[in-house]
Amino acid sequence: MTGTLYGLGVGPGDPELITLKALRILRACPVVAYLAANEAESFARTIVAGHLPGGQTEIPIRIAMSADPAPGQAVYDQAAEALAGHLAAGRDVAVPCEGDPFFYGSFQYLFTRLAGRFPVRVVPGVSSLTATAAAVPVPLVSRNDVLTVLPAPLDASVLRARLAATDAAVVMKLGRHFDKVRGVLDELGRTPRSLYVERAGLEGQRVLPLAEVVPPVPYFSMILVPR
Amino acid sequence: MTGTLYGLGVGPGDPELITLKALRILRACPVVAYLAANEAESFARTIVAGHLPGGQTEIPIRIAMSADPAPGQAVYDQAAEALAGHLAAGRDVAVPCEGDPFFYGSFQYLFTRLAGRFPVRVVPGVSSLTATAAAVPVPLVSRNDVLTVLPAPLDASVLRARLAATDAAVVMKLGRHFDKVRGVLDELGRTPRSLYVERAGLEGQRVLPLAEVVPPVPYFSMILVPR
Repeated sequence: MTGTLYGLGVGPGDPELITLKALRILRACPVVAYLAANEAESFARTIVAGHLPGGQTEIPIRIAMSADPAPGQAVYDQAAEALAGHLAAGRDVAVPCEGDPFFYGSFQYLFTRLAGRFPVRVVPGVSSLTATAAAVPVPLVSRNDVLTVLPAPLDASVLRARLAATDAAVVMKLGRHFDKVRGVLDELGRTPRSLYVERAGLEGQRVLPLAEVVPPVPYFSMILVPR
Repeated sequence: MTGTLYGLGVGPGDPELITLKALRILRACPVVAYLAANEAESFARTIVAGHLPGGQTEIPIRIAMSADPAPGQAVYDQAAEALAGHLAAGRDVAVPCEGDPFFYGSFQYLFTRLAGRFPVRVVPGVSSLTATAAAVPVPLVSRNDVLTVLPAPLDASVLRARLAATDAAVVMKLGRHFDKVRGVLDELGRTPRSLYVERAGLEGQRVLPLAEVVPPVPYFSMILVPR
């Protein structure tokens, strides 16, 4: 009997935004693995810290985030092998993931490496997409609206074309790309109603009209472009 | 002291995919209102039925869904006034919403009518977007992928243009629009890798390669177009 790998969405940051299902599985697994940027504590672990029963084997997986690591990185190969050892020995492994495991999450690189060899279950979580709208609060999309999710590192020309052709949009991963994104929204006349959101639903949350933002801004911040 | 209106995302259908926060607030409110299609029981109520403590005042809000009701419909005015009575009397009102309240949810029509008059809080929920990817399971988006969410009732020309310009897409609200959507995906050569998902995460879940689907399909079904 091999163990099962669980990718658990634990929500955008507020520990209370974990689902009953993710919490139940998280507490039941003998092994818990966390993806974390080098040197920093895993954000996912911070979210679930108060929910852990104690006594679990914890495996930190350190990823150099500076270069937005490619899915082929050897670090994922090594991490997958470490987890495979536990799975082969019959131990279930939980991987808590901030937000949702398949919505811009690194869990998918473990998934692609292990899904063919072991049972894998994914529990969806509250994503930063809807958490940001709820935090403002402002309705995101209704009826036949088109919604586009855009990572800020994309070229300005791509951002411009996609933003011009959508009803509502969310631009993620701002950081050093903030000025470029605001420039595009200025050109399109969509800055006035756009909102900047940082730490949605967490202590220190900031919601500002986009026009009032003074960079620099953190990587984990978003611009919400209402319909 | 007026009451607070709570829009509670209760997830895509599995009662265990409610968050701790939505559950706590749901149980604490003296009044619970449900949006429901005419004649049918509210899907949101079905999801939370097992979580209700009993003794709450329940307000069903019947909406004729056949025509995808416009946000200006008088039924929302009437429902808002019914809730306003409780709020003005100091009673907190919870509105459980399937998925997320601001992600194609009718709650936003109550929100726009009541947010200026009473305190309103929105608790985000697991949306059908990520629940569908988790149910397959298949990764949705990573790194700098563009994700587009498209309601199937849109014109074929709009669907074609948006689908041609995105990495990944989810097409929602299929129902009688299924043939049109598949025709567009056929033209774009994206049918072979696309997946059809019905009742994601629920009993009776169906996941099929898009090419194998025989319509008719229900309204609450989706097509996932992987990157």
